[in-house]
Amino acid sequence: MSFKIRMAEVSRKRQTNIVLALDFPFQNPKEREKLLARAQSILDLASPHICAVKINHHLTLPLGIFDGVQILVNQARQAGLLTIMDGKVNDIGATNQTIAEYYYEAGFDALIVNPFIGWEEGLKPIFEVAGKHGRGIILLTYMSHKGAVEGYGQTVIDGENRLEVKQYLVFAHKALKYKADGVVVGATAPDKIREVYQILGSTVPIYSPGIGAQGGEISAATKAGASYLIVGREIVQAPDAAGVAEKFKLSARKTT
Amino acid sequence: MSFKIRMAEVSRKRQTNIVLALDFPFQNPKEREKLLARAQSILDLASPHICAVKINHHLTLPLGIFDGVQILVNQARQAGLLTIMDGKVNDIGATNQTIAEYYYEAGFDALIVNPFIGWEEGLKPIFEVAGKHGRGIILLTYMSHKGAVEGYGQTVIDGENRLEVKQYLVFAHKALKYKADGVVVGATAPDKIREVYQILGSTVPIYSPGIGAQGGEISAATKAGASYLIVGREIVQAPDAAGVAEKFKLSARKTT
Repeated sequence: MSFKIRMAEVSRKRQTNIVLALDFPFQNPKEREKLLARAQSILDLASPHICAVKINHHLTLPLGIFDGVQILVNQARQAGLLTIMDGKVNDIGATNQTIAEYYYEAGFDALIVNPFIGWEEGLKPIFEVAGKHGRGIILLTYMSHKGAVEGYGQTVIDGENRLEVKQYLVFAHKALKYKADGVVVGATAPDKIREVYQILGSTVPIYSPGIGAQGGEISAATKAGASYLIVGREIVQAPDAAGVAEKFKLSARKTT
Repeated sequence: MSFKIRMAEVSRKRQTNIVLALDFPFQNPKEREKLLARAQSILDLASPHICAVKINHHLTLPLGIFDGVQILVNQARQAGLLTIMDGKVNDIGATNQTIAEYYYEAGFDALIVNPFIGWEEGLKPIFEVAGKHGRGIILLTYMSHKGAVEGYGQTVIDGENRLEVKQYLVFAHKALKYKADGVVVGATAPDKIREVYQILGSTVPIYSPGIGAQGGEISAATKAGASYLIVGREIVQAPDAAGVAEKFKLSARKTT
């Protein structure tokens, strides 16, 4: 069963489309046991209200993927959640292959990749590793930070007819062509979610980060076509992580 | 003293402009002690012939940056070498900041970053962290793999005058504007090294990977304007790593 289908099933069964971004600011690496304990606690509190957890370098760098992070991946799996590694992979072929092998070996169900690297010796080896292990790939399409306009938002000359087209639409077409399990489009740009949705329809689901702290809104992102909503700081830094996660879950349910 | 100047001095004193890419294919993480021992041995053998070592996810993922990788960073420092973390960072502001803080905390002298993320909430927080810690930033400009043509090699509409320009030249101009300590241009594309050198001159040095295994040649890259030559598999996988590293050093000296 593909990651795309597994996500749809887990989300339907748990009645939530919220993905927790388990991100923490820099911590003294000498205190990483504390960081791991805090991450475990937040994941535990948020679990009933989410369908997946997304882990980034916020945790892989201090904890290591075969040490603390693998404990979190196993905890998520035991809670019935799927796990996404937000590596934003963007290297040459041999390195991309190695990176994918390590992340999947650590137990991640899907890996986020930057399609800017192109196909040959770029995306291709990652799709091959994912296929071999039966895991997923999600492609960045438009990010949630201001500077995204310079790269993801730039106009490029595309294809044999040399048409002017937005970079993020080129990426959306690639996600469709390569049968990616999802794309990432920031909730801070609902107009772009709509444009990407017009290309992907229900074939490739849209994951939308930037909800809350970064200014994105659940209803706008959902109405524009986002399937999954990624929430980080709003839950992780809340005094009542479970309550806030539940609030996001219910709020998203209303607009779905 | 900036990383750019430190590199120039170390390279001059040691009479070598070879940077070792200490990359290994996937290893069973249960055998990571062996992987660390092998990396230590190769670094030791190559040390007399190189000015810096570049570490990538090939090692950070299995070893962890505050575990095995930090041992390698300290070993490099004791040998008088500089250390570059090839993280190809490409995330949102808060994450980029955290990533840079962890890598610099682990002891790396410079960090490789993808300028595709743009300035605001992209490159800016990384430059701020680098400035605070007195460390370096090297920007990707054109990569050494085939798919690079799709992203780095694409034509974009740039600036107020809406001129058609190659993506890698946009990145080169950004490196100059932001005072990066270096740019990466693959040795597999010496014509692009030449074009980038015409923009950067001696202000921002060019680091050129892809020598050897990927088909790049020292003389072509150097003549086109590369200051530092990054060699990985050719040394790492050689039965005689010291001999091969020395051969590259002497070969580069001849064409400098």
